Amino acid sequence: MGGPPPAVAALRVAVRPGLLFSDRPVLVACSGGADSVALAAALAFEGRACGVPVGGVTVDHGLQPGSAERAGRTAELLRELGLDPVFVRTVAVGTDGGPEAAARAARYAALAATALGHGARIALGHTLDDQAETVLLGLGRGSGPRSVAGMVATREDDGVLWWRPLLGVRRATTRQACGDQGLPVWDDPWNADPAYTRVRLRTEVLPLLEDVLGGGVAPSLARTAELLREDLDALDGLAAAELGRLRTEGADGGLPARPLAALPAALRRRVLRGWLRAAGVPDLQAVHLRAVETLVTGWRGQGRVDLPGGAGVVRASGTLVVLPPVRRSGPPAPGHLEEPLP
Amino acid sequence: MGGPPPAVAALRVAVRPGLLFSDRPVLVACSGGADSVALAAALAFEGRACGVPVGGVTVDHGLQPGSAERAGRTAELLRELGLDPVFVRTVAVGTDGGPEAAARAARYAALAATALGHGARIALGHTLDDQAETVLLGLGRGSGPRSVAGMVATREDDGVLWWRPLLGVRRATTRQACGDQGLPVWDDPWNADPAYTRVRLRTEVLPLLEDVLGGGVAPSLARTAELLREDLDALDGLAAAELGRLRTEGADGGLPARPLAALPAALRRRVLRGWLRAAGVPDLQAVHLRAVETLVTGWRGQGRVDLPGGAGVVRASGTLVVLPPVRRSGPPAPGHLEEPLP
Repeated sequence: MGGPPPAVAALRVAVRPGLLFSDRPVLVACSGGADSVALAAALAFEGRACGVPVGGVTVDHGLQPGSAERAGRTAELLRELGLDPVFVRTVAVGTDGGPEAAARAARYAALAATALGHGARIALGHTLDDQAETVLLGLGRGSGPRSVAGMVATREDDGVLWWRPLLGVRRATTRQACGDQGLPVWDDPWNADPAYTRVRLRTEVLPLLEDVLGGGVAPSLARTAELLREDLDALDGLAAAELGRLRTEGADGGLPARPLAALPAALRRRVLRGWLRAAGVPDLQAVHLRAVETLVTGWRGQGRVDLPGGAGVVRASGTLVVLPPVRRSGPPAPGHLEEPLP
Repeated sequence: MGGPPPAVAALRVAVRPGLLFSDRPVLVACSGGADSVALAAALAFEGRACGVPVGGVTVDHGLQPGSAERAGRTAELLRELGLDPVFVRTVAVGTDGGPEAAARAARYAALAATALGHGARIALGHTLDDQAETVLLGLGRGSGPRSVAGMVATREDDGVLWWRPLLGVRRATTRQACGDQGLPVWDDPWNADPAYTRVRLRTEVLPLLEDVLGGGVAPSLARTAELLREDLDALDGLAAAELGRLRTEGADGGLPARPLAALPAALRRRVLRGWLRAAGVPDLQAVHLRAVETLVTGWRGQGRVDLPGGAGVVRASGTLVVLPPVRRSGPPAPGHLEEPLP
């Protein structure tokens, strides 16, 4: 008899732990592309085996001719795979941040609303190759280690649990698994359009890096991102504990300057960031943190440090104090803008 | 009158803090290329202004026809710039790890010996562009965050202080500064030979990344590396402090398992690594650390974990204990093999 083909088995092994650890219903976000179709097939199979309900969502962005028919065909495929329920969500894509970012924002909003309405987690088909592209994109931004740490396998955000079981699986494996199971795959023309940065990273930069560095680059990027995430999570956790400790020392929500000065810089900046965020200061940049930090590390009696949104920080009697803004700005932007097209 | 040309001024500004903070004599490692010649000129000027003695070293690898004459001309240029003393070191390059790594190992050994003999620190001409290439090389290796953190501006190693004042300066600036000052520059043909990974990163990968990501990639890579180094240094420091604390709890140099289990994984692995290194275990790899870690996080009464060099770790009465090897291997390899050609 033999088991399933290796690619099909690899997909099933990748999704299984997430079904064994939790019986929360799953909705697969499916574009009709190889990654998310292979994911849907694996989750349908393992969901039956583990007794976890698995449904699906496909989003019609209304940006290409025939997109409604495409979404309908994808939904039909998901139903044939045994997914239930299956939703088609039609979204209105705005223009903020360019077409790629606007489509992503609309899609994630629709997925989040569907997940909340259904009490389900959302499974996303991002692969190891997507992860490698994300790391390279983050490197180019230069906004610090977290931007190089890539996507996380599970994240809860405003009550929605996002799950990426395929971050260790190659894109070639998902395509193979679709072929092995006779599943139709839709190749979004946007995924080959060199107008998109991610497409050029995929089709030009990563192949050149593979050639120059001697292969294995995508797995190397993904592995580095994983180890890095672990390090950054540890620092964030230590900083949160330190912030809790220092808060009990400072009066009225202020932070005592002297113990802050004794912390390593990487920890001190995280403590300050957590403290200012908790105080409702929006859009904190590195430059603001450095300015607040000089009240600790370069104290010479200077005055108020201005922050975005009209807030400020002063040092008084050895304690850092946030001064509230005269008027408040809006809530921070949603957190999904930095993630790839699924 | 006006000051010096901007490129010359930028180089002088870059080297000045290191001369103001310490009057330890400096020896510039100079290949005759634009980076190290511009560095030598800037250090000669600022050394006079700050009263810090500045000399130079050039290494003849004996690998190219006329290399001895080249080294002689470079030494003469350094003397004309006012550097004193100026050494020419002739080295015998082995074959270990390929020609690039072998030349580097021989060069650094000669530089270290000269520094120790002269009581000086060694100034190296690595630029921001070298840093970006180093980060990309580290990414391709996938050996973890530290390999992406690039080169440090100052490092003391076996009594030798290595100083890289130009990590924030672009390569184009050093070339401009040489031109502005009429300094002859030697372009090592090896620096254009696509047989070398670093050369292809410089001439193919980074230009493509600049094009795809919209520019500013090298500074972004360098900035990320700097922030990352800060984070990793903080974690290393916290782990060293934790190791010191736990050692006083465990008897006879052992580590108590229960408090180890309570640490974040990133900190626990660093504590274990520091402990095992201090016990003289050579060539520790991630796989060994994970195996030792299971004695803490996956304890089910299992036996000895074998380590390189014949050592082992057991858990006894709630304490991790290192068992010495039957026979000891040699000392660990020198730490300079991963750095670029100067």
